[in-house]
Amino acid sequence: MTEQNQDLPDTESYDPSASSLAGQVDQSVMAELLSIRSSIDNIDATLVFLLAERFKATQKVGFLKAAHKLPAGDPGRETAQIARLRRLAEEAHLDPAFAEKFLNFIIGEVIRHHEAIAEDHLASENNGAAASQPRLSPAAPSTAVDA
Amino acid sequence: MTEQNQDLPDTESYDPSASSLAGQVDQSVMAELLSIRSSIDNIDATLVFLLAERFKATQKVGFLKAAHKLPAGDPGRETAQIARLRRLAEEAHLDPAFAEKFLNFIIGEVIRHHEAIAEDHLASENNGAAASQPRLSPAAPSTAVDA
Repeated sequence: MTEQNQDLPDTESYDPSASSLAGQVDQSVMAELLSIRSSIDNIDATLVFLLAERFKATQKVGFLKAAHKLPAGDPGRETAQIARLRRLAEEAHLDPAFAEKFLNFIIGEVIRHHEAIAEDHLASENNGAAASQPRLSPAAPSTAVDA
Repeated sequence: MTEQNQDLPDTESYDPSASSLAGQVDQSVMAELLSIRSSIDNIDATLVFLLAERFKATQKVGFLKAAHKLPAGDPGRETAQIARLRRLAEEAHLDPAFAEKFLNFIIGEVIRHHEAIAEDHLASENNGAAASQPRLSPAAPSTAVDA
């Protein structure tokens, strides 16, 4: 799931103080801005690794469902999930509507993953490869969506 | 930023085993499915609280920018942020394109927050309230976008 980003320069050398405001802002204000941005950067790194872990988990579900021919969707689960996320959002003083939108955004990506995987799966079947794949390999049917 | 969800029943009583598959699936398979879903639920709770913390940070930036009349956008910062997130995504075996899409999704929400806040701000100005607001109050100009 990785790719080379040769079109993006300097991806290895992140400058936490990169800013188009440099030199135009009072030094103490810039220091406060950079301090808050440093927290945002830490949060973003955590989000990326946490999202990666979440996709690992939904991939496991995908393979489990595929292995046992379980249906793609699970409306009972999804309803409970949405209600819980909205309640947690209220506790966190986050807009519950945003929490629901966020879950739908992630679900969309899970579906996209499964579709891409299904295409690979179909391609390997057409090439005469075995239809069954080891667990956690990059192949699961597109029907195995569980977010 | 909270709202009542009287249209969503049972938001207080989450059932982690809620599933439309109940009774149709072998017990050991269901146990494995629920185990993975329990991890997904833990990750989702973490994501919600982390996102709430991120919005607190961008709100601080919004007030800082408003107080010092700094421009809304910061292209230099945003370019560095995107390159870093894509690199972190590669490390985490997450699709870098998804990481970038995710950041844009969050930025969209930050902008939406600021617009809503600006409307409140305008309304309170029209009502003769003082234009300056205490830091972290729910009022900042719509131009103070920094994600």
